[in-house]
Amino acid sequence: MSEASAKAAKTVTAAVLIIGNEILSGRIKDANLNYLALELNKLGIRLREARVVADAEGEIVAAVNELRRSHDYLFTTGGIGPTHDDITAASVAKAFGVALRRHPGAVEALARRLRDPADLNEARLRMANVPEGGVLIDNPLSGAPGFEIGNVFVMAGVPAVMQAMFEALRSRLRGGEPLRARTLVTDLREGDIAERLGELQAHHPEVQIGSYPFYRERRFGVSLVLRATDEAALERTAAELREMLLALGGEAREETPG
Amino acid sequence: MSEASAKAAKTVTAAVLIIGNEILSGRIKDANLNYLALELNKLGIRLREARVVADAEGEIVAAVNELRRSHDYLFTTGGIGPTHDDITAASVAKAFGVALRRHPGAVEALARRLRDPADLNEARLRMANVPEGGVLIDNPLSGAPGFEIGNVFVMAGVPAVMQAMFEALRSRLRGGEPLRARTLVTDLREGDIAERLGELQAHHPEVQIGSYPFYRERRFGVSLVLRATDEAALERTAAELREMLLALGGEAREETPG
Repeated sequence: MSEASAKAAKTVTAAVLIIGNEILSGRIKDANLNYLALELNKLGIRLREARVVADAEGEIVAAVNELRRSHDYLFTTGGIGPTHDDITAASVAKAFGVALRRHPGAVEALARRLRDPADLNEARLRMANVPEGGVLIDNPLSGAPGFEIGNVFVMAGVPAVMQAMFEALRSRLRGGEPLRARTLVTDLREGDIAERLGELQAHHPEVQIGSYPFYRERRFGVSLVLRATDEAALERTAAELREMLLALGGEAREETPG
Repeated sequence: MSEASAKAAKTVTAAVLIIGNEILSGRIKDANLNYLALELNKLGIRLREARVVADAEGEIVAAVNELRRSHDYLFTTGGIGPTHDDITAASVAKAFGVALRRHPGAVEALARRLRDPADLNEARLRMANVPEGGVLIDNPLSGAPGFEIGNVFVMAGVPAVMQAMFEALRSRLRGGEPLRARTLVTDLREGDIAERLGELQAHHPEVQIGSYPFYRERRFGVSLVLRATDEAALERTAAELREMLLALGGEAREETPG
């Protein structure tokens, strides 16, 4: 993409909705948010908000409707299995005001995974229920598909399955300008750099400067993260930041991503 | 607490608001939600919702006001340091419609941690800004305090600091009936147990039955989690569930918590 067309591209935003009592009870640590944050960023899609709600219809419907209207994309995880507490598909249908229908393609995908056709019982067939107008998201790992409706992508909660589904839908997404990042790590304290850092931010409004203190091995430090779509502005600001940290008598160690 | 008074106790709910671009960009994996979920549960406080928002005033104000009104407690993490992107205190003041004031106790706490009084610069003093009416939350680890205002508890984002603050405020919280849990793990597939599991749930509405498939070492399994305030109901339902799983030809392995 040329510099000019990159600048013309619009900012594309997303929200993530994590559905599941098990995250809120603390039984399970969510692993999907971080994966989606990183993958969306690579595609030039800015994750702007995430929510975790219980397996409760009213809460899912409200969150789906609020988040799909305020972002270009909404990705949900969890609640699409065959048991009584899997109510995501029905809740999304309700949010869109459409009927829940048995999707023939989903029935087929389920049937293909089962050795004995008799295993395609009523419970498993619930996983083939898709809101009217929904398009399937392939699940190469365990068969039961997710679905896309409007700007909402409904995926499984099990991380390995969610990731396989995300791979399957990735090519349907259209990102905007990718946000590039540079990170400098210093041993200075936030309180000693804050004033000059604020000045640097004021001089470079096109670069987002984040200051993230950490505490490791009983020592404090700060990661300074610069983000911008314009590589040249990023370079310029990083050079000034490095100079500033050295002038204050601190380290300015470049952190390589990944 | 006696059985009768436990039954009379009301359900106490909470929400968590995680404030920080670094979680949404994927640079950092949040570690605070799971900690708070587990600790609140121990106190008999039900975490009902969590949100992650960017370091953006409008988004913080909206989330604080929505969540503090719909839950008994709101806990926030992140954005209370000395740098330009730390805007939580100012945003919470705005949400409550009160002024942001320099808190003498917070100034004192900051001063105590500094070897050289000259280090108490304007940037560090920002960390002593507290919405009017706020009560400090002690920070034994790094000095800069959090604060409590109304039903909102504002804490640091660095996990070690957040945990130290939570320990400091724990005694101020009043929980309701604690939710007890029992977990049975089976090698059966969700689709094979779903129908009878739904019947079990229908017969025991006082017990919340969650079904959580997992995928480990290339094998699927299911954790069945029963939650209830009434120990006897929990026991009864767990015994029926065990019988059901064995009758279906599967394992029913009790998982000990922790």
